[in-house]
Amino acid sequence: MRWPRRNDAASIAARRDAIRAVVGDEPLAHDEEAWARAQESHTGAAVIPVAVVGPLLLELGRYELEEPAGTLRETGRAREEILVPLAHTEGGLSASMSRGLKAAEASGGFRTYVLHDRMTRASCFICKSTEDAVHLARWLEASVEDLRGFLAALDDPALSKRAKLREVKTHVVGPMCHVLWAWTTGDACGPNMMTRNSYALNMGFVMQQAPVKPERALLEANMGGDKKPSFEFFQSGHGKTVLAEATLSSDTVRRVLRTTVDDLLELSWAGTHGAVASGMQSVAFTPASAIAAVFACTGQDLGMVGTSSMAHGTGHRTEDGGIQAAIRFPGLEVGTVGGGTTLPYARSWLELMGCAGSGKVHRFAQIVAAAALALEISASAAMATAGSEDFFRAHHERGGLR
Amino acid sequence: MRWPRRNDAASIAARRDAIRAVVGDEPLAHDEEAWARAQESHTGAAVIPVAVVGPLLLELGRYELEEPAGTLRETGRAREEILVPLAHTEGGLSASMSRGLKAAEASGGFRTYVLHDRMTRASCFICKSTEDAVHLARWLEASVEDLRGFLAALDDPALSKRAKLREVKTHVVGPMCHVLWAWTTGDACGPNMMTRNSYALNMGFVMQQAPVKPERALLEANMGGDKKPSFEFFQSGHGKTVLAEATLSSDTVRRVLRTTVDDLLELSWAGTHGAVASGMQSVAFTPASAIAAVFACTGQDLGMVGTSSMAHGTGHRTEDGGIQAAIRFPGLEVGTVGGGTTLPYARSWLELMGCAGSGKVHRFAQIVAAAALALEISASAAMATAGSEDFFRAHHERGGLR
Amino acid sequence: MRWPRRNDAASIAARRDAIRAVVGDEPLAHDEEAWARAQESHTGAAVIPVAVVGPLLLELGRYELEEPAGTLRETGRAREEILVPLAHTEGGLSASMSRGLKAAEASGGFRTYVLHDRMTRASCFICKSTEDAVHLARWLEASVEDLRGFLAALDDPALSKRAKLREVKTHVVGPMCHVLWAWTTGDACGPNMMTRNSYALNMGFVMQQAPVKPERALLEANMGGDKKPSFEFFQSGHGKTVLAEATLSSDTVRRVLRTTVDDLLELSWAGTHGAVASGMQSVAFTPASAIAAVFACTGQDLGMVGTSSMAHGTGHRTEDGGIQAAIRFPGLEVGTVGGGTTLPYARSWLELMGCAGSGKVHRFAQIVAAAALALEISASAAMATAGSEDFFRAHHERGGLR
Amino acid sequence: MRWPRRNDAASIAARRDAIRAVVGDEPLAHDEEAWARAQESHTGAAVIPVAVVGPLLLELGRYELEEPAGTLRETGRAREEILVPLAHTEGGLSASMSRGLKAAEASGGFRTYVLHDRMTRASCFICKSTEDAVHLARWLEASVEDLRGFLAALDDPALSKRAKLREVKTHVVGPMCHVLWAWTTGDACGPNMMTRNSYALNMGFVMQQAPVKPERALLEANMGGDKKPSFEFFQSGHGKTVLAEATLSSDTVRRVLRTTVDDLLELSWAGTHGAVASGMQSVAFTPASAIAAVFACTGQDLGMVGTSSMAHGTGHRTEDGGIQAAIRFPGLEVGTVGGGTTLPYARSWLELMGCAGSGKVHRFAQIVAAAALALEISASAAMATAGSEDFFRAHHERGGLR
Repeated sequence: MRWPRRNDAASIAARRDAIRAVVGDEPLAHDEEAWARAQESHTGAAVIPVAVVGPLLLELGRYELEEPAGTLRETGRAREEILVPLAHTEGGLSASMSRGLKAAEASGGFRTYVLHDRMTRASCFICKSTEDAVHLARWLEASVEDLRGFLAALDDPALSKRAKLREVKTHVVGPMCHVLWAWTTGDACGPNMMTRNSYALNMGFVMQQAPVKPERALLEANMGGDKKPSFEFFQSGHGKTVLAEATLSSDTVRRVLRTTVDDLLELSWAGTHGAVASGMQSVAFTPASAIAAVFACTGQDLGMVGTSSMAHGTGHRTEDGGIQAAIRFPGLEVGTVGGGTTLPYARSWLELMGCAGSGKVHRFAQIVAAAALALEISASAAMATAGSEDFFRAHHERGGLR
Repeated sequence: MRWPRRNDAASIAARRDAIRAVVGDEPLAHDEEAWARAQESHTGAAVIPVAVVGPLLLELGRYELEEPAGTLRETGRAREEILVPLAHTEGGLSASMSRGLKAAEASGGFRTYVLHDRMTRASCFICKSTEDAVHLARWLEASVEDLRGFLAALDDPALSKRAKLREVKTHVVGPMCHVLWAWTTGDACGPNMMTRNSYALNMGFVMQQAPVKPERALLEANMGGDKKPSFEFFQSGHGKTVLAEATLSSDTVRRVLRTTVDDLLELSWAGTHGAVASGMQSVAFTPASAIAAVFACTGQDLGMVGTSSMAHGTGHRTEDGGIQAAIRFPGLEVGTVGGGTTLPYARSWLELMGCAGSGKVHRFAQIVAAAALALEISASAAMATAGSEDFFRAHHERGGLR
Repeated sequence: MRWPRRNDAASIAARRDAIRAVVGDEPLAHDEEAWARAQESHTGAAVIPVAVVGPLLLELGRYELEEPAGTLRETGRAREEILVPLAHTEGGLSASMSRGLKAAEASGGFRTYVLHDRMTRASCFICKSTEDAVHLARWLEASVEDLRGFLAALDDPALSKRAKLREVKTHVVGPMCHVLWAWTTGDACGPNMMTRNSYALNMGFVMQQAPVKPERALLEANMGGDKKPSFEFFQSGHGKTVLAEATLSSDTVRRVLRTTVDDLLELSWAGTHGAVASGMQSVAFTPASAIAAVFACTGQDLGMVGTSSMAHGTGHRTEDGGIQAAIRFPGLEVGTVGGGTTLPYARSWLELMGCAGSGKVHRFAQIVAAAALALEISASAAMATAGSEDFFRAHHERGGLR
Repeated sequence: MRWPRRNDAASIAARRDAIRAVVGDEPLAHDEEAWARAQESHTGAAVIPVAVVGPLLLELGRYELEEPAGTLRETGRAREEILVPLAHTEGGLSASMSRGLKAAEASGGFRTYVLHDRMTRASCFICKSTEDAVHLARWLEASVEDLRGFLAALDDPALSKRAKLREVKTHVVGPMCHVLWAWTTGDACGPNMMTRNSYALNMGFVMQQAPVKPERALLEANMGGDKKPSFEFFQSGHGKTVLAEATLSSDTVRRVLRTTVDDLLELSWAGTHGAVASGMQSVAFTPASAIAAVFACTGQDLGMVGTSSMAHGTGHRTEDGGIQAAIRFPGLEVGTVGGGTTLPYARSWLELMGCAGSGKVHRFAQIVAAAALALEISASAAMATAGSEDFFRAHHERGGLR
């Protein structure tokens, strides 16, 4: 079988004709011209239904990057009500998140903080010896300014001026000098732009000017976390590091979540120890459900669902007997410009949250984190509900069982 | 703000009217009636473009479960050419997978094997003491037959006859008796059916009949891997454990992948040690991109992209100087019936692969694994390409950089 | 029993007098002998001082292995007072463990349970293909009886009849068929005996009789946990899996440990989340200090301190406001015969605990676990003490600072 | 230098005679003293035999710390032959390390590099809210100069002037602000001195002056790696970060190690993937055996054997067909002053290596790393030996079996 691979009209038509008898007309009927620019071998469409839930009551921060270090500075905070779109086919997810939103709203809403903002590309230089690798590492760590200057001087349209080099972190093991190039990428998620720039650093600067000659340069060698969960990712982040928190009164827990603070804390205790016992690097309840649902309707890269779902959730009793629920996302890999965000549908759903276009990426990251925490709260409550036993007995002995 | 939450026609219309001015008509125009049954607060749609690539040349196994142990038995093998649909907006993904498919085709194609098939729900019983938890664990491990009998005798339509209990694994830590209920779930992915059945076991059997009375039963306490990557998941699986392999000749590597076997092996070496250095539990190159793209067009649960992407990839030189590329997926959480697989679009794309409906789940799992390996091969080649340095110099010194 | 705790001449003499009849003169004076049979290039000696602390009030189980499966059966329980020898030069360790022992004694003592008993050697067969590796794995898992028969028929004095093969666990990744040979090793720790037997299985059985011919057999390839901490070790064990527990009243916590149950639970909460945040596989407070001190005086292999210290500690509030402190050791790699245990000093210190020779290994493992929990309790209390702030202010502002 | 290796009376006498002038009579005979100052409840002694192996041919660096950042600067390199004392009762260990030393010597010896030098104490401040914890973290990270000044101004003899604060690293999760106080500790290992100083910072500075009032200060909450292996420890170190390397010719591998470079590389490949498959954080072959043996005779803290054995080993083919073996120790927790190093025996064995007292700690760390690599090389060779199969057949079919 010779399968046409290009994206010209004839090839697209040929692919469609070849499979129409099997898949039917429906998935081949979307003729949005932008699709063919987004992917090779474009052929048809997948449609995922979108629920809209809300309101998400949120106090969130505004941030800007200080130059040249790229440190985040909080310039203000605001309080808003936001509607959240969720693309999914998992029954119960939207209802559960709605319940979590309602519980938080009844207790004053969510608060979010962005701590850190970096994307990293993990290259590796294989040297002749450990000695060379050590020398290379020392030189690289001392060359940040020169590396920035090199990029600034390049006039290559393939490179991105938006991707700014912030730090260079090396890790030598054997003759390998692994390098984490750490970038900020503006309002784009940024994997492509930082990849091109990293390639330029590797080939145009390091391989030309390093005091020791590496035997080989590898553009990516797994230390950075690009679509690959790791402890490095969990600790140091990749994308936006965001904290979200809500404090629920005991009355809210009982009335909205139909459980008790004691029940939630016992679940949190057993669940954390279950996480340890099973070797979870990332300890939370079900963040991936929320992350995937928001990502799928906003043009984010779905291959990043696993990494962006890395999270550390905690629950703590408050002085007045309520519960403080919090979650830390080390790396929400989100964008509000570039990639899939500019395509139809995605841009519309970003607009719904006031997150389309420039200057919105920290806002979007905070909304994602808060929405995920809403689901954590509600899903935990469902697993911890007091009186499960009575419920089962009533339902099964008197009801369904005979 | 009071936001309508139900799925009746009036509520859907109300939600649409409320946001039409912001999101526009397009995402609200899909009136497929099935959507509202799939999710609560249904409002609109997200559309993701689908590329079709191929052919995937694959020798795959046929499997059946032996009763009552649930062991997989291979009943035959077949060789096929398959077209693979990919929903994504990541530029280059389809082209790269196409190249990997071509390379494998030139060397005889892929071979896949399904080793294991289980879904687990991780419950936890908090007891009065370690002593009680130890007693409970011993009793549970000795009660598998009774537990199966209990479920068989229940005549509750809420329970699933398709979800069959296969093993009971306990883990005691402190007063907690964690329990992994291990199920097979037919051709469905199965999280809902096994959750309902596990709940019945917890409340109807354990809490009623256990020789020691647990203080508390928690339906889920994180040991099982449901949307949560863990070492337990990486080692023991959750869903289908699938191996895929392709052996590429050195000529194919040079001609199709534009690199060399030495380059690929060096990348594999440095990448594996980079993975160790960064604490990756799951060591492969970019499996999540492929998993996400197939999942998004076939109605799989996108919240499972992270877990189903856990993988262990290896490369090894063959006697005749080629390379054997292999990948192990411990838990592909896939279904060909139930959940999102029955919805429009999803069902069509499953049909394209001959994977819609009953008796297809092991076939589907193997296609997913082989497609992911195709991307691994091609993406690795792109990062390992010999002569990167020359390429950069030519392009930048004589070209763009002037 | 009132045990003297001070270090004045009278107390030291009193302790020596009290145990001289059990341990003999030797460890209380000194005499070199027989070292040259224990190690190559023998030259001199290292001496580490030994404290004796106690009593350790312990309710412990008696166990036997059921044939042929090797399952542990508890045949009885007893309550004893035991003196514990600790070889170390870390100031404060003995005093801290003493305090933990006292706290537990005041609340009824420790309880311990042995759950599992296995040593594993992780071999690996590299095959021509994944297909071959899969076939080899299936054959190995079905050959346990034949493998046992092969060993039983061998009349080679280099092999051990004490090391009994219990299970064969395979793990295929790429063309590698990793094999965990799981043994019981009687009262010896057993690494040497199982290594020799595993070698015989690899070379005499597998390489001769396997239906597919592996290209290479490696005696050890890192899956088993021999001196190498891993999640596999943490979950499935290597040596004796032992649980220990003590329940302390709030009064005891205040009076003996000088802190409160609230303080201990807050430390446990923050410490568990700190462990998650730093990527600890093994989550406890300072088990290695206790393990090392007992191992160093009883002839255990000090290279196993890291693995045997893998532990999972928990704290939970009891109904009457006390705290239940528990710890799970997945693999205490201990022996009471063979290796260093037969040498002078080591044998004497084992005698002190009634743990020298045959039939004592499960007893010894339980004493080690309980002693380690004693230190966990006391060291935690020291880090969680209420009023630290007042203490500091009093000491520094009024005292030491001017 | 020809070092006698056998265990006959003459060889033992020869080794004793050769080193008596350096180590004195004491470790070669025995005499108890001063132990009661090292531990509470002192009672007796444990004696562990000590082998002396060598020579270790080593090119090692000299280092000094730059003020105030505490960065290591290499001030020179030297080449030496060193004798290594090993306290252990594991048969074969000394012989195996001797073989590794011989193999390296035949190929030019070992080379070592110290990259980093830090001890950390992980405290935690529990705050009222995530907001407070974020504010506290920002303030702490900006207060390094003030924190140093606070310590410098304190005139408390309980505090250490040797322990110098270098960095403050925070990690916020929920209301917890974890803090890693990073110190250099001169030539001492330093846990006690940095603990006292950290306590002073917590209680005297943070709890008094922080802009938000923490609810609670915990001196240690598990993020730092004190006797607790973690990914944080593996990546960022605790103690001295040391790299060691040796390059062996194929001839040396065949003649001294009785195996081939191919065999060693295959073992390295399978062993690394076995490590990944079993979830080892620290990937090497058997570093703990060497670490424990050197620690036990030099007065190091044996509770640190597990952490100091964390290592990352690699093997790589050289251009001329040899093998480059390397190992990275992220945190060798060693001292040459303080703690057990000042006691009899320990001090003598340190003297043997020229490592007793001030200004020796980086030298000692490098010797430990090189000795451990010697054992890695030899033990790997033993597991990878070509012709194992022939060996077994010859031995068992013709020899032992009948």
